Amino acid sequence: MSVEIDVLDEVTPEFVRRIEASLAEGRTEDLRALLVGLSATGQASVLEQVSEGERDKLVGVLKRDLDPEALTELDEEVLEDVLGQLDSKEIAAAARELEADDAANILEDLPEDERREVLAELTADKRAAIESALAYPEDTAGRLMQRSLVKVPDDWAVGQVIDYCREATDLPDDVYDIFVVDRVGRLRGSVPLGRMLRAKRPVSILDIVDPDIPSLPATADQAEVAHVFRDKNLVSCPVVDEEGRLQGVIMVDDVVDVIDEEAEEDLLKMGGVGSDDMHADTVRTARLRAPWLMVNVATALVASLVIGQFEGTIEKIVVLAVLMPIVASMGGNAGIQTVTVTVRALAMGELTAANALRFIAKEAVVGGLNGVLFATLLAFGVIGLFGDWRLGAVIGAAMICNLMAAALAGALIPIGLQKFGIDPAVSSTVFLTMVTDVVGFLAFLGLATVFLL
Amino acid sequence: MSVEIDVLDEVTPEFVRRIEASLAEGRTEDLRALLVGLSATGQASVLEQVSEGERDKLVGVLKRDLDPEALTELDEEVLEDVLGQLDSKEIAAAARELEADDAANILEDLPEDERREVLAELTADKRAAIESALAYPEDTAGRLMQRSLVKVPDDWAVGQVIDYCREATDLPDDVYDIFVVDRVGRLRGSVPLGRMLRAKRPVSILDIVDPDIPSLPATADQAEVAHVFRDKNLVSCPVVDEEGRLQGVIMVDDVVDVIDEEAEEDLLKMGGVGSDDMHADTVRTARLRAPWLMVNVATALVASLVIGQFEGTIEKIVVLAVLMPIVASMGGNAGIQTVTVTVRALAMGELTAANALRFIAKEAVVGGLNGVLFATLLAFGVIGLFGDWRLGAVIGAAMICNLMAAALAGALIPIGLQKFGIDPAVSSTVFLTMVTDVVGFLAFLGLATVFLL
Repeated sequence: MSVEIDVLDEVTPEFVRRIEASLAEGRTEDLRALLVGLSATGQASVLEQVSEGERDKLVGVLKRDLDPEALTELDEEVLEDVLGQLDSKEIAAAARELEADDAANILEDLPEDERREVLAELTADKRAAIESALAYPEDTAGRLMQRSLVKVPDDWAVGQVIDYCREATDLPDDVYDIFVVDRVGRLRGSVPLGRMLRAKRPVSILDIVDPDIPSLPATADQAEVAHVFRDKNLVSCPVVDEEGRLQGVIMVDDVVDVIDEEAEEDLLKMGGVGSDDMHADTVRTARLRAPWLMVNVATALVASLVIGQFEGTIEKIVVLAVLMPIVASMGGNAGIQTVTVTVRALAMGELTAANALRFIAKEAVVGGLNGVLFATLLAFGVIGLFGDWRLGAVIGAAMICNLMAAALAGALIPIGLQKFGIDPAVSSTVFLTMVTDVVGFLAFLGLATVFLL
Repeated sequence: MSVEIDVLDEVTPEFVRRIEASLAEGRTEDLRALLVGLSATGQASVLEQVSEGERDKLVGVLKRDLDPEALTELDEEVLEDVLGQLDSKEIAAAARELEADDAANILEDLPEDERREVLAELTADKRAAIESALAYPEDTAGRLMQRSLVKVPDDWAVGQVIDYCREATDLPDDVYDIFVVDRVGRLRGSVPLGRMLRAKRPVSILDIVDPDIPSLPATADQAEVAHVFRDKNLVSCPVVDEEGRLQGVIMVDDVVDVIDEEAEEDLLKMGGVGSDDMHADTVRTARLRAPWLMVNVATALVASLVIGQFEGTIEKIVVLAVLMPIVASMGGNAGIQTVTVTVRALAMGELTAANALRFIAKEAVVGGLNGVLFATLLAFGVIGLFGDWRLGAVIGAAMICNLMAAALAGALIPIGLQKFGIDPAVSSTVFLTMVTDVVGFLAFLGLATVFLL
C-alpha cells in the first residue's frame, strides 16, 4: 500500500522520456513492461504527454494491453486519435470491460458505420445498455448514470434483501445504497447499506427506507446534476424517467469529472479559448482561437475610431498619446476584476435578482473608491513629471470616470448577458474592454480637448 | 420525493424578497416558518443573499433554529458575520451537531478566548476530536478527514465484523468501507461493505481485504487530496500518520468542496482578484483589489515609457497614435489565450518537463499563423483606409512580431513562474500584458520611425 499516490509521481517526465527512448529504438518488450505496470490514469497521462506520432506507435504496440479504463480518462482529441489506431474488434474488447455509460462516451464520436461494427461484436445485453445510454443527449443525467444497481421490491423484508445480495453474483463492489421500487418500478426511496446491515432480518425494508432522497430526471443537464450533488453532499443519486421509474444511478466520481469539466470551461472561456485545445493539432488550434481575436479586432477598431476623433488634440499635445493607454488599461483591469467576481457568483447561484441591485451598487462604490485612489496617485505623478497641474487634473478625472464605468459595466454586462440566455463567461470580457477602452480614451482625450487646448 | 432539487428552486429571488419583507415588518413567526422549512444549503443561500444588516437580524431571530450544517456551507466572510451574532453557548450547540472536521473549520476563525469558551461547553470526546483536527494546518488531509469510521482488527472473521457493526449504536449511516488494521493500528486495507455482505461468516476478513488501496498522509495538501480522488475515482480515502496508523477517512463530498474551491481560486486569480470578495464589505473589497491595480499602474507606466521614446514620430504622424492600441491589444488577447491554456495544463498536470518544449513550439507556431492572418487583414484594412501601403506593411509586421511574442511569453511566463515556485495563475497575466504592450508599441512605433519618417 502506498502512502502517497499521484499520477505525477507515477508518470514523471523522466519516465515519459524512457518511453520515448524505447519507442525510438524499437524496444517493444521494454515498452510493454513499462506501460503494463501503470494505472489506467497513468497510461492515459503517458498517451497525452507524447507527441501524436509517438502516440500512434505506442497504441500499435500496446493494443489489448491498453487498460480500457485509460480510454475514459483521455482528452477528447487524444481519444479520437487512439481510437483511430484500433480496429472494431479491439474497441469492442475495451467496451466489454467498461460500464455502459463510459462505453457510450467512447463510441459516441466514432463514425456511424464503425460504431455499428463495434456494437455488433458485443453481447445483446451490453449492446442494449450502450444504445440506451447513447439515446440520451450528451451531458445529461441519462448519459452519466450507470445501470448496474441493486433494486428490490417494496414488499420485501431485510432478510430477503440480504439473501438476494448474497446470491447475486453480478453485483458490483461499489454498492452503497439499496433502492426500493414499487410494483411498476417507481422509486420509493433508498436504504444505505450500513443501515441495512444493522437491521433485523424480519423488518420490512419499507420501515428503514429513506423516502425523501433526491433524485434526478434522466434529461437533467450535467451542470444541474453537479449542483444537486454539491448542495446535498451526495455520494450517489438515483435517476428516474418522467413516470418516476428508476433508470439508473449516478456516482459521485463521475460528477467530479463533470465539476472539473465545467470549471475548466469557465476558466477557458474567460480567457477567450473556446475549448481545451492543448491536444489539438497546430492548425486546428490556430483556427479555434482566431474567431475570438477577430472579435477583438472589431472592438480595437472602435477604440481607434474614438482616438481618431481627437487627432487634432493629440497633434498639439503629443504627451496625451503617451498617457492615454494608462487610463484605458487601468479601466480594463479593474473591470476584469468585477467581471470575474460577477461571472463566478452567477455560476454558483450566489448572485440572483434578490441581491443584484445591492451587488451592482457595491461594485460601483468599489470602483469609485479605487478610482479616487488611483486618480490621486496618477494626477500627482503627472504633475510631478510634467509640472502641469491641468494635465494632472484631466488624467485624474478620466481615471475616476473609467474606473466607475468599468465597475458598472463589469457587473451589468454579465448579469445582462445571463438574462438574455447568453453565457456570461464567454462574451463579458470583450464587451467590457470595449467599454473601458472607449470610455478611457473618450474621457481622457475629451477632457483634454476641452480644458487643455 | 422531489424529482428535481436545486437550491435555486428552493430559494428563489421571490422567496428572498418575502423574507426581507417579513424582516422589515418584524413578522418574526412568519420568518421562522419560512426559514425552518429550508434545507441547510437553502438557509445558507438566504444568509448569503440578504444584506449584512438583514443577516444580523435574521440570525438574531433564528438562533438555534439555524441548521448547524448551514454554517458549513457559508462563505468565510458571511460565516464570520453570523458567528459574531451568536454567543459561545449557541456556537457550541451547533458544534455538537457537526462532524469534528466541520466544527473545527467553524471554530478556527474565532478569537482565541471565544474558541476556548466554546470548546469548554463540549464533551471531552468532542473537544478532543475538534482540537486534534485543529492541530493540523488548514487545507490539509488531517483537517478534511472525519474520525468516525469502522475499523476492525486483522484477525477477525466476517461474522465477528458483522456482529460488531450490528451492535455498535454510534456508527454513522454513511459507512461504505470497513478498514482493517493490525495490532498497532496500522492500516492493512479495506473491505467494501457490499463485498462483506456477500462473504460467508467464518471467512477471515483478511481473505477479502483490498490491501492495495490508496491512502493519504495527514499532512497532504488539499490540492493533492483532490488529485488522488480524481485519479483513482475514489469515494473515500483513509488517512494515516507517519507510521501508517489509521487516523481517519476523507469522504468525497468534502473533496467536491475542495475541487470547487481550487477551481474558484484559479478563476479569480486569473481575473486579478485574490479571493472571493463577493461578501466582503465595500471598503475591504476596494482594499483587496487595489494591490493588483497598483501592479498594473507600474506595467502601464512601462508601456508609456516606450511610447514616450517615440513622441517625435507621433508628432509627425499622428495616425500612429490612433492605430497603436490595436497592435498592443491584439497581442494582449492572443497572449491571454495561451496563458489560460498553459495555466490550466500546468494545474492539471498535463504539461510537464516531458512535453513542455513541444508545447511551447506549438504555441509559437499558432501565434505565427494567427499573426500572419491578422497582419494581412489589418495591413489591407489600413492600406484601404489611408491609401498608404508602407503604413499597412508596418502595422502588419508589428502585428506578426507581437502575436509571436505573445505566444512565447504566454507559454514561457507561467512555466517559468511555476519552476520558481510562484503560482502562475496569479501573476502570469501582468507579466504577459507588460510584454505585449512593450513589444506592441515598440515594434509598431519603432518600425514606423525607421520606415515612415
